[in-house]
Amino acid sequence: MNGNHYDVAIIGGGVIGGSIAFQLAKRNVRVVVLEKDRIASEASSAAAGMLGAQSEFSNEHPLISSMAYPCEKCPSTPCFIPFALKSRDMIVPLAEELKELTGIDIGLVQKGILKIALTEEENEALQRNYEFWRRMEQSVQWLSVDDVAVFEPNVTKNLRGAMYLPNDGQVSAPDLSLAFAKASIVYGAEWQEFTEVLDVAQEGDDYRLRTNHGTVHAGAVVVAAGAWSALFLEKTGLSLSMYPVKGECLLVKVEKPIIQTTVFAKNGCYIVPKKGNRLLIGATSTPYTFDKKVTVQGIMSLLERAQQLLPTIRTAEWERAWAGIRPQTGDGVPYIGEHPHYKNIWIATGHYRNGILLSPITGVIIADLVEGKGSGEFDLAPFSLTRHQATYTV
Amino acid sequence: MNGNHYDVAIIGGGVIGGSIAFQLAKRNVRVVVLEKDRIASEASSAAAGMLGAQSEFSNEHPLISSMAYPCEKCPSTPCFIPFALKSRDMIVPLAEELKELTGIDIGLVQKGILKIALTEEENEALQRNYEFWRRMEQSVQWLSVDDVAVFEPNVTKNLRGAMYLPNDGQVSAPDLSLAFAKASIVYGAEWQEFTEVLDVAQEGDDYRLRTNHGTVHAGAVVVAAGAWSALFLEKTGLSLSMYPVKGECLLVKVEKPIIQTTVFAKNGCYIVPKKGNRLLIGATSTPYTFDKKVTVQGIMSLLERAQQLLPTIRTAEWERAWAGIRPQTGDGVPYIGEHPHYKNIWIATGHYRNGILLSPITGVIIADLVEGKGSGEFDLAPFSLTRHQATYTV
Amino acid sequence: MNGNHYDVAIIGGGVIGGSIAFQLAKRNVRVVVLEKDRIASEASSAAAGMLGAQSEFSNEHPLISSMAYPCEKCPSTPCFIPFALKSRDMIVPLAEELKELTGIDIGLVQKGILKIALTEEENEALQRNYEFWRRMEQSVQWLSVDDVAVFEPNVTKNLRGAMYLPNDGQVSAPDLSLAFAKASIVYGAEWQEFTEVLDVAQEGDDYRLRTNHGTVHAGAVVVAAGAWSALFLEKTGLSLSMYPVKGECLLVKVEKPIIQTTVFAKNGCYIVPKKGNRLLIGATSTPYTFDKKVTVQGIMSLLERAQQLLPTIRTAEWERAWAGIRPQTGDGVPYIGEHPHYKNIWIATGHYRNGILLSPITGVIIADLVEGKGSGEFDLAPFSLTRHQATYTV
Amino acid sequence: MNGNHYDVAIIGGGVIGGSIAFQLAKRNVRVVVLEKDRIASEASSAAAGMLGAQSEFSNEHPLISSMAYPCEKCPSTPCFIPFALKSRDMIVPLAEELKELTGIDIGLVQKGILKIALTEEENEALQRNYEFWRRMEQSVQWLSVDDVAVFEPNVTKNLRGAMYLPNDGQVSAPDLSLAFAKASIVYGAEWQEFTEVLDVAQEGDDYRLRTNHGTVHAGAVVVAAGAWSALFLEKTGLSLSMYPVKGECLLVKVEKPIIQTTVFAKNGCYIVPKKGNRLLIGATSTPYTFDKKVTVQGIMSLLERAQQLLPTIRTAEWERAWAGIRPQTGDGVPYIGEHPHYKNIWIATGHYRNGILLSPITGVIIADLVEGKGSGEFDLAPFSLTRHQATYTV
Repeated sequence: MNGNHYDVAIIGGGVIGGSIAFQLAKRNVRVVVLEKDRIASEASSAAAGMLGAQSEFSNEHPLISSMAYPCEKCPSTPCFIPFALKSRDMIVPLAEELKELTGIDIGLVQKGILKIALTEEENEALQRNYEFWRRMEQSVQWLSVDDVAVFEPNVTKNLRGAMYLPNDGQVSAPDLSLAFAKASIVYGAEWQEFTEVLDVAQEGDDYRLRTNHGTVHAGAVVVAAGAWSALFLEKTGLSLSMYPVKGECLLVKVEKPIIQTTVFAKNGCYIVPKKGNRLLIGATSTPYTFDKKVTVQGIMSLLERAQQLLPTIRTAEWERAWAGIRPQTGDGVPYIGEHPHYKNIWIATGHYRNGILLSPITGVIIADLVEGKGSGEFDLAPFSLTRHQATYTV
Repeated sequence: MNGNHYDVAIIGGGVIGGSIAFQLAKRNVRVVVLEKDRIASEASSAAAGMLGAQSEFSNEHPLISSMAYPCEKCPSTPCFIPFALKSRDMIVPLAEELKELTGIDIGLVQKGILKIALTEEENEALQRNYEFWRRMEQSVQWLSVDDVAVFEPNVTKNLRGAMYLPNDGQVSAPDLSLAFAKASIVYGAEWQEFTEVLDVAQEGDDYRLRTNHGTVHAGAVVVAAGAWSALFLEKTGLSLSMYPVKGECLLVKVEKPIIQTTVFAKNGCYIVPKKGNRLLIGATSTPYTFDKKVTVQGIMSLLERAQQLLPTIRTAEWERAWAGIRPQTGDGVPYIGEHPHYKNIWIATGHYRNGILLSPITGVIIADLVEGKGSGEFDLAPFSLTRHQATYTV
Repeated sequence: MNGNHYDVAIIGGGVIGGSIAFQLAKRNVRVVVLEKDRIASEASSAAAGMLGAQSEFSNEHPLISSMAYPCEKCPSTPCFIPFALKSRDMIVPLAEELKELTGIDIGLVQKGILKIALTEEENEALQRNYEFWRRMEQSVQWLSVDDVAVFEPNVTKNLRGAMYLPNDGQVSAPDLSLAFAKASIVYGAEWQEFTEVLDVAQEGDDYRLRTNHGTVHAGAVVVAAGAWSALFLEKTGLSLSMYPVKGECLLVKVEKPIIQTTVFAKNGCYIVPKKGNRLLIGATSTPYTFDKKVTVQGIMSLLERAQQLLPTIRTAEWERAWAGIRPQTGDGVPYIGEHPHYKNIWIATGHYRNGILLSPITGVIIADLVEGKGSGEFDLAPFSLTRHQATYTV
Repeated sequence: MNGNHYDVAIIGGGVIGGSIAFQLAKRNVRVVVLEKDRIASEASSAAAGMLGAQSEFSNEHPLISSMAYPCEKCPSTPCFIPFALKSRDMIVPLAEELKELTGIDIGLVQKGILKIALTEEENEALQRNYEFWRRMEQSVQWLSVDDVAVFEPNVTKNLRGAMYLPNDGQVSAPDLSLAFAKASIVYGAEWQEFTEVLDVAQEGDDYRLRTNHGTVHAGAVVVAAGAWSALFLEKTGLSLSMYPVKGECLLVKVEKPIIQTTVFAKNGCYIVPKKGNRLLIGATSTPYTFDKKVTVQGIMSLLERAQQLLPTIRTAEWERAWAGIRPQTGDGVPYIGEHPHYKNIWIATGHYRNGILLSPITGVIIADLVEGKGSGEFDLAPFSLTRHQATYTV
């Protein structure tokens, strides 16, 4: 149905593909986004939307603790930290730009994230984390039990300590994803929904993508297909160390706001206050499955942990539950870079549960790479497609 | 909009109003049903549909233990028992009759109800219950822990004993309610949805009902408005001892059937196997509220109790949750009879969580009363509208 | 359940009740809102959200053409015009205030309303309307067929002329309603959902309201129950000339924006561009019914008229349809004022399809009246409860 | 996750895959069904469920008019007719068998299909069709305008003639699909939902299927993936002449039944009476797209045609709209047979809008083929995979 030629074809219409499409279209690159279902129909719409540049990354994160960090470029600071921090900072002007272009309010809330330690062991880990951020010279506060009682009076009193990260925030993940898509369209990008790419072949300097809706030709290809990326890349002879991780979430509604900030337990449960007195409770982690069924077990475990953190949540009204499939990698680090065998096939995937946070910077970096501008201030070695002998095992 | 005259106007289009309309229309009585919302939009559609003629009534039920039973008419047997048993027996031919008339399959399942005792105290009470049914000469079996393991292998092993009631069954409550309505229409009844009765006044031998959609005239009036009956009857100077009880339920789905019978714990939780590998889990009881919000607390308590009964339910898929408002009375016994101050105003309400079970017989009894045929084999004294000094207090 | 005493009890939790609650609570008045279902569950959430201060009122509106206008207070201008214009102007600072207080973006769009004449007869009427607004010295532009082709290129070419009202706008009706409610709560108002007021009685200087959830006492009562107001007021001996009008609406989704402004045909069909490339198409008018069913006929008539106005809408994606019940009065003018028989019972109803537009000013006027401050610059005579011999006939 | 070995792996969990799984499992064959989404999540659940063995096939159908029929085996009768008729006849005992095994009522209604000619041209074609069925000695009646007025009084009077096919009927398509799946599970089949087959490779006598959830080994493979079959078979070097056809449908609800039979216009619109006074209106045909969006245009065209057939449908209540993607072939005939290059890869696809009707016989034929029993009474040549030079073009 479409034999047109594009500068760049992006495979995957989630938040990462959308951010890349937006950046490229803004630079007058002729872009088409090929999405197998609808815009942001997978993990991007299922996400809680936290901008956890600090809450998600710490001295214990694989990028920092187990890789060759600090790297040469920035000997005193692990360089993934500036990467996440920068992406978080990009959100503020982006919210305005997207609102201007599309009318969509991405729901940016800048009230911080409060990490709670419920056990002594968690408390010690959290304190190390706190020290880490102080050394990094990032905003962070330590809150005693009494401080928390004043700051978020509905949070459980059965806690040992808490760390407040004032600069972490949140957005509406579906709205950010839609805003990227719509803004890219304003700048001329095309989106083809329900369009699955079956295979890709080189044809002179171009790539020919066969889809269920005909053939698309493009000078460059970007694979941003989330948890489905590895399956597609297998067809190009590239085995990545990736696996899907199901995450279940809930939405409940309270009569009056009971928390101001996002409350995040060390046990993995978080509660994010959303528009209209909603609270989003996330998330379970079930690896190695593409099954999006919400289970009784998932709901029970989320409700139990949420009630432990925030006892008054028991009176909240039930709204709904859903699941998304997140793209995890063997070492927990995204893949961002060029295909090792094919020039001008670019890959941006494996963002796991940080796709929303990292979408702004991923969009800019891939757009720069596609345009031959290099990776700027960032060393992309840790994101390299060839950083290890990858095997996809289920 | 409607100034027509009817023989009987029924206020309330739930399962009770529908059953009465069906019986009256079948006898060529000109009937109109006035429903404030849609057909069966309240408790009748929210119900689990159990036909617990034995599982719901026992020697501990108020009708039996605390009232003047055995009554004169049937000195050796508490007469409410035959009332419930008869209604249950009426369901089998009714299922066929309704299917024939309307094409609707009411989902009758006759595989019994299994009552489980989880503690020693529950076990003793259950044994007394078992003895009671033996004395009543009703079908009942006692199952040991080992018997249950064979009979329903997925039920918890942490039980003390179980009583199996082979003749109790279940139907689809929404389908039964719709089938009554549709069958009554086949016989000529009229239904006016979204029609709220504002007040009723005597006019010669007739009643004039003012509604939000004009005035309806009828020779007789039946009030079958479930939890809303008492509020309406206040306008006629009648104070009933009634209060609303919210009940929350869940629906989950399993890959393969894990139980055959309805499993009912003494702690109030029951699991009813439904069409398409669904399991309906009910029900909470929150008295004194018309609020139909499903709460986090309600879901947690149902899931915890269900998992205690049937551990493998943890892997089930979540479908949805809802709530209904059930009409409870001060002594737990329905009101069935004539208005004490107004001739030809009949009342059938307060069926609490037995509305589905008791709908067949209530339909016949009210139709008989309206036609001046008396109450037949049953003494209606325990259902009398004047049986106590009723006060509605919240 | 609640025997508390309030300064003011508001019956009805829609956009009018919410606006009044917000204004009163902001002035430290102790307010309770009694809502029979949920917040804004009726017409307020069903509305299209147009702020048609000019598009809805013209020299042909009953308030202007058939009543005693110009009135004495403002001899040269019909005074309902300033009333609507003022309410429209109040929305801009209100949007900011509500966002600040509640975090809710009410979706204010200030891109005008374009009224289209499709026939010569409509064109003449529209031109008279245009002349009227020029005489009133309000912003208005006449657009030729060619102008429209430039301004809104997707609008049909089969038009005769068009009037552009740059200052009319739109909001999200559900979001405005929720924002009023939430903001009133921030200022201390209480909301009781699922609470139906059964009757009201004087008790000394106070009123006692009997509800399905117990009794509420209040020094003053405000009836803001939309289409249900007349039914309630009958209980107080007041017959208003009011009737319900069902309005059906649709929501469809386009891939790219196809209109910028709200497009409004003289034939009554309007298309309002909403967030996320949605188009809201409204509205049918079916008088004398509380039935909220969406009919095949309603959908066909809306789609046909929408397609006439905006042919490319045929390719839009279907989303959903719904209906609301709007409170219309015999002369098309709202009722705003004191109950003729009871001091301190205030009434604000009958806003028909202008409830969203008129909610800001209605909130302030009722708050002023309740506080004994009078009606300020506005003569409320046309809104008087006793302006005619009202009879409610269906 | 699953390295198990099966006798047969079926790709596709719709009504065709389910019927095959049921027949094989019943014969003690070890079967796994691999479904990329959920059971029957595509066309099988979107279908209207008509059993149009006569209404869908006539002297004008490609199978009969343009192919080499009558064939040698049955010189006097085009043999596709017996194929469809037999499948229709199989439904009656199957309904009982499936109900018995699974408890699911597949909603079989045997009240015939009424084909309506609205124009003189349609009338002539319909009369030829009528003559055809008489020659075939199949039940068929010709109805005059007056006959139709008696038989289905709500059908338009603006018709020229009608043909009644008493033996064509209908089922609930989703219920039939679920019942096949559940019955196959009762007989031991396994179903893996959310499991996409990425590629298939020969490995000795077996096939190895790589999926997103690990690898499956099977002695034989059945491809029953509906509109997705051709895309998969491309990977095996087989180009089929297939294309997707979107079909949109609606569901509306009437207060009382207005038709007894399925009413089918020659213009392609049909109205199928369903449970609970629902009417299913189908279906549009949009070729060459996998896009499942329901369009404004689709709804308008269905409602207009339905109203032409059945004017009183205007008062019906709107319920919902949906779309499915049907697998059409170049000559309108399904593909049923063995893969031309790979032994023991069987294909059953291209049933277009007759998947429900043909599912019983397709299940039996493929089961026979897999077991090496041949095709029995039927010549499968017209269904052959190599019957033409197939090219998939979009």
